[in-house]
Amino acid sequence: MDFSIRAANVDDCRDIARMIMNLAEYEKMADFVKITQRDLEQDGFSKNPFFHGIIAEVPEQHKTEEGHTKIGYALYFYSYSSWSGRAVYMEDLYVMPEFRGKGIGKALMSKVAQLGLAAGCNQLNFNILDWNKSSMDFYLSQGCFNITTTMGYHCMRCEGEALKHLAQP
Amino acid sequence: MDFSIRAANVDDCRDIARMIMNLAEYEKMADFVKITQRDLEQDGFSKNPFFHGIIAEVPEQHKTEEGHTKIGYALYFYSYSSWSGRAVYMEDLYVMPEFRGKGIGKALMSKVAQLGLAAGCNQLNFNILDWNKSSMDFYLSQGCFNITTTMGYHCMRCEGEALKHLAQP
Repeated sequence: MDFSIRAANVDDCRDIARMIMNLAEYEKMADFVKITQRDLEQDGFSKNPFFHGIIAEVPEQHKTEEGHTKIGYALYFYSYSSWSGRAVYMEDLYVMPEFRGKGIGKALMSKVAQLGLAAGCNQLNFNILDWNKSSMDFYLSQGCFNITTTMGYHCMRCEGEALKHLAQP
Repeated sequence: MDFSIRAANVDDCRDIARMIMNLAEYEKMADFVKITQRDLEQDGFSKNPFFHGIIAEVPEQHKTEEGHTKIGYALYFYSYSSWSGRAVYMEDLYVMPEFRGKGIGKALMSKVAQLGLAAGCNQLNFNILDWNKSSMDFYLSQGCFNITTTMGYHCMRCEGEALKHLAQP
């Protein structure tokens, strides 16, 4: 199937918000999604964006029953490792279920890797839920490795009242 | 003990590089450190910095035997959650051993939290090595939680030849 991969622009935020919710539903985490189309517009497409996006698109003749031609996305941002320097972090990688198995997810991830290398990055990092075996198998097949199981890295978070309390001088 | 917390500048890179190596030695990971003072200068203090830094400093009369007054640091960068929006990621938090237990680490982390909240962030994220119990206890006491054990998040990485291969169109 034909598809194209391109940088996201502000007009894609409605579709990105739709697919973020789809992905969260797949991950059984829909209740955690607080983000809106407006947040994405402000945070990704203003002067100092917090993230960048990539869109996968199919031609009109392959649109979904609901009329969607934007059928996958990746979000990423640049990060830093104090050991190995510049890095790129892939926040999301998603392809709508009916378009999987066609190389679209691989093409999106490949684009993030290309952009990262072009910016001088030495690492592509991301998180995954441990029960998501099909995604894990895909990532391992691409030469990624699990630094939680191999090196003991655990992800920590502070938010809400704890974050406000921590910020008190 | 008196100490001050301030934004890092390019002249701090020599001391940050020294303490990055100290921290990696403490984490038994010194062989992984590829970063140099020059990398830090370029990557943190040019037009589009990949990270920001904070320095903890003591007065001259408390300098170390080797003459150091810059005795702790934190590195951070802004990131994004497609569920909850703007976030700040703390890459490193380090205080030299002889200055621990005086609230300096807490003050550094508090500053990262303050800056994150001021930038509209809803989360402070970081990674930790699972064997580092004293650090884990400190972070848990600050209201942080371990999203690897509570939600199943695992950290994944692609680098080196695998990253170059992934980036092939």
